Amino acid sequence: MLELKDYILKHGKVLSGDILKVDAFLNQQVDINLLKVIADEWFDYFKEKKVTKILTIEASGIALACATAIKFNVPFVFAKKSITSNMSNNLYQAKVFSYTHQNTNLISVDKSYLNKDDNVLIIDDFLANGQAVMGLLELCRQAGSKVVGVGIAIEKGFQKAGDILRSKGLDIKSLAIIDSMNPVSKEIKFRMK
Amino acid sequence: MLELKDYILKHGKVLSGDILKVDAFLNQQVDINLLKVIADEWFDYFKEKKVTKILTIEASGIALACATAIKFNVPFVFAKKSITSNMSNNLYQAKVFSYTHQNTNLISVDKSYLNKDDNVLIIDDFLANGQAVMGLLELCRQAGSKVVGVGIAIEKGFQKAGDILRSKGLDIKSLAIIDSMNPVSKEIKFRMK
Repeated sequence: MLELKDYILKHGKVLSGDILKVDAFLNQQVDINLLKVIADEWFDYFKEKKVTKILTIEASGIALACATAIKFNVPFVFAKKSITSNMSNNLYQAKVFSYTHQNTNLISVDKSYLNKDDNVLIIDDFLANGQAVMGLLELCRQAGSKVVGVGIAIEKGFQKAGDILRSKGLDIKSLAIIDSMNPVSKEIKFRMK
Repeated sequence: MLELKDYILKHGKVLSGDILKVDAFLNQQVDINLLKVIADEWFDYFKEKKVTKILTIEASGIALACATAIKFNVPFVFAKKSITSNMSNNLYQAKVFSYTHQNTNLISVDKSYLNKDDNVLIIDDFLANGQAVMGLLELCRQAGSKVVGVGIAIEKGFQKAGDILRSKGLDIKSLAIIDSMNPVSKEIKFRMK
């Protein structure tokens, strides 16, 4: 059975600026067989944690959160990146800087959907500088929810945020940790366990 | 087993301006049991259509497309609402006006992910004025893909776009068609089959 690292080597594209394009199978076109493999891996790792809710951020985290929530049989919640006219004022909010878009988003979740009884598993497609995960952690802190772990598909290990967050006690399960990638040779080096 | 109409009556909120808030179970917090019921209904309806790909638009269509793609065992693709720095220039594009946000988005899909051999099932959470569906139809037209049908969770029947698109021969399966909703009494009237 093919796993995430195989997809990255086969279909990922290394671009300059430390960009890894994975929209052939994860970020625009989504391969549901891969989603199932990923959800199974996170389930095996976090199944004892009494997860009550999956939390992610729109848009590219949603597919991963959905497949994972199906596996855990719990609801999932996605934080929004912008405030729209039909949202309530009853929100948890946190600032997240996006290096891809070079702007700061105020992410939010309605207070009804995270609470102090929740054991939250945070899910996202990439972990690079850690901004999105830190924003989601802040929403959970405001809600009084317990974060039982973080499931990341692809961690850019050379950007160090994952190592820093782990050193603070966060249980992060990244399915592919990239220690280096070369936009000229296209070579990708994964961290060995 | 509860179906979509039950969720709408129990957890939906009718606001002024013809807004129906469903973020308790579909648009921010997502109930995966409901997702499975919805995917099963679309599968029953479209299963003879030789669907090769599910197409939706970010962000709130992604969960529905994901569950439906798992049921059909095909990939899904989501159109993006904005152009980011790491996207290719090789895009199908269409203009979509958003009444919620009062702006026009240029939606896009990389040309690699839709092609002339695809039998596409379009999926979205709401059908109101039909702008999103028409944008997705335009992307398929550019790609030469065959659109075999459209699966909609909630159709605002009083806004007529669904009826107009059906009159043009489009096979639309909406799971809840609302003929009227009253922001004062909160009453919702569904169309009878």
